[in-house]
Amino acid sequence: MTTPLAARIAREYGTPAAVIDMDRVERNIARVQAACDKVGLANRPHIKTHKSPMLARLQIEAGAKGITCQKLGEAEVMAGAGIDDILISYNLLGEEKMARLGALQLKANMTVAADNPVVIAGLPQAAAASGRPLSVVVECDTGRKRAGVETPAEAVELARQIAASKGLTFGGFMLYPTESGWSDAQKFYDEALAGVRAHGLTASMVSTGGTPNLKNLGKLNGATEHRPGTYIYNDRMQVAAGVATWDDCALNIYSTVVSRAGPDRGILDAGSKTLTSDTGGGLEGHGLILEHPEARIARFAEEHGFLDLTRSNTRPNIGDVVRIVPNHVCVVVNMMDEVVMVRGEEIVGTLPISARGKLR
Amino acid sequence: MTTPLAARIAREYGTPAAVIDMDRVERNIARVQAACDKVGLANRPHIKTHKSPMLARLQIEAGAKGITCQKLGEAEVMAGAGIDDILISYNLLGEEKMARLGALQLKANMTVAADNPVVIAGLPQAAAASGRPLSVVVECDTGRKRAGVETPAEAVELARQIAASKGLTFGGFMLYPTESGWSDAQKFYDEALAGVRAHGLTASMVSTGGTPNLKNLGKLNGATEHRPGTYIYNDRMQVAAGVATWDDCALNIYSTVVSRAGPDRGILDAGSKTLTSDTGGGLEGHGLILEHPEARIARFAEEHGFLDLTRSNTRPNIGDVVRIVPNHVCVVVNMMDEVVMVRGEEIVGTLPISARGKLR
Repeated sequence: MTTPLAARIAREYGTPAAVIDMDRVERNIARVQAACDKVGLANRPHIKTHKSPMLARLQIEAGAKGITCQKLGEAEVMAGAGIDDILISYNLLGEEKMARLGALQLKANMTVAADNPVVIAGLPQAAAASGRPLSVVVECDTGRKRAGVETPAEAVELARQIAASKGLTFGGFMLYPTESGWSDAQKFYDEALAGVRAHGLTASMVSTGGTPNLKNLGKLNGATEHRPGTYIYNDRMQVAAGVATWDDCALNIYSTVVSRAGPDRGILDAGSKTLTSDTGGGLEGHGLILEHPEARIARFAEEHGFLDLTRSNTRPNIGDVVRIVPNHVCVVVNMMDEVVMVRGEEIVGTLPISARGKLR
Repeated sequence: MTTPLAARIAREYGTPAAVIDMDRVERNIARVQAACDKVGLANRPHIKTHKSPMLARLQIEAGAKGITCQKLGEAEVMAGAGIDDILISYNLLGEEKMARLGALQLKANMTVAADNPVVIAGLPQAAAASGRPLSVVVECDTGRKRAGVETPAEAVELARQIAASKGLTFGGFMLYPTESGWSDAQKFYDEALAGVRAHGLTASMVSTGGTPNLKNLGKLNGATEHRPGTYIYNDRMQVAAGVATWDDCALNIYSTVVSRAGPDRGILDAGSKTLTSDTGGGLEGHGLILEHPEARIARFAEEHGFLDLTRSNTRPNIGDVVRIVPNHVCVVVNMMDEVVMVRGEEIVGTLPISARGKLR
């Protein structure tokens, strides 16, 4: 079964194609902005998901205070498009990056994160290059064992180092609590805040993160802003996390069935170079096929998706164009030079993914 | 520990960076060409690994008969750079693709693969658009359960359909035997060949595939050519398969340690958007760190690689630039706009990955 829109996409652009529904995109932007407004938190969306200045501007026009980037290269694209309030939620390190960060400070109001003294020791080089003070927030690990200091005492120590560094100002704290760990995060934050206050510092930015954490929005007493990313498109992970419905999933991969291979098998023209091998935290199969939800995208070659149809009552024909909700949309978008925009059944045009591949 | 070259790469380009050693690239090209020459097989390297016309030309100058592409978009880039003998080892389907394939036939000598009657029924549209005959080989599944017909009888049936189609010529067979399945492949091929001969057809192209299958080169009696891809760079998968040594691995990801996070942990600035989540067929960890081979790249965020150092006697410092051999180099290259070329300790320059992201 091929929808009329899928047939038009295949004819005009070919498959596999990443297609975003702008009606859904705008609805997702509005819903999360309203949720932030409701609890009095600023919204600072993470652009790692869409990597598009046009979509970042839509988020800001809807009320977002600024944006979050993970890499300098992303921030350069966004600042170049006129976005002027940017948090880079990442340890930036090395001469090459300090020179670029200094140049960025002349274009946008920059904040960066740090979780160790070596990174902080390097940042004054950027501030010196720009001649402007650089705001630095301390990243705190509140349970995920990813980046971030592991104790409030370390956070206080880094805050003091920042405040004592020429050209740097202590900006506050950045947290990404686990979905069930917000009371631990509160304890961590309260202790860190008391610690910095004891040294005469204030935390003007207290930033929480994550689309799955939208269900915890406002739970951290003292938070000033939230950094959701995936919500603009959503994906199987967000549906599994309970923060999105299938109707909120704004990006589909349109893919052609190019072979049936065997009676219980099928082959898509989308493989790991389109959908990536990301399991979305252990989801069954490599994406949901809307036309055949019981079909399992069981394995990948680089340009092939291998379907296991044993449990599927409906079976695609060769030539069918199907729509796939990816496991993890952020890594999928990162492989696309452009996405096709639609509104309902109408094709609007294409959108370049300007910050795609900006990995440094 | 940071090598002097790694320090220069970080200073001049920043990290993470994909770096290829051209001495190793040329050695890999020469070695595999010599192996093909020795057993009297033509070499038709698959460019999915490097996606660079410059490197494809090096392969042809070394003696390769032509190249293999997986997607039309890759073939368009290669034909645009003057490469004139191209096999697209893929079921191509749909009006949009047939128009492009017809246009490509005017630029290069094209062969395409097919494993089902629907795909074959569409191909005459390309031949008609070009006004030239199109050579079609039948893809045979000899044990992998990927693409390809499952029985010699089906292969013969498709060969007859091709031969009876206006504008198409039956070109032969394409196989990708499992590493231990070459006697099965021989049986399949012999039966299919006898079948087509009974109908007055000949198989002028009999193509086997795979870098891991270099150890089986020449084992299929009747084969005319081989399609190795990964051998130009190699990776952990090829070392595990026994067809490459660490010294044959020509591409490294240079990555900075941006945090130690905890005593037994470390964080790289390369995550799933640099190295991908590809496990390389179930390898332990997400890549080998040459400076710390006992460190495990245990988990990824999109831009972070999380190190488990519990079993590592040596531990990196924040700011160290390390070199990583990826699990699966083909999917890594597909995320890079460019690679940095070196020869030994000298930086040569950058090479654009012109066919990157050509997924359709």
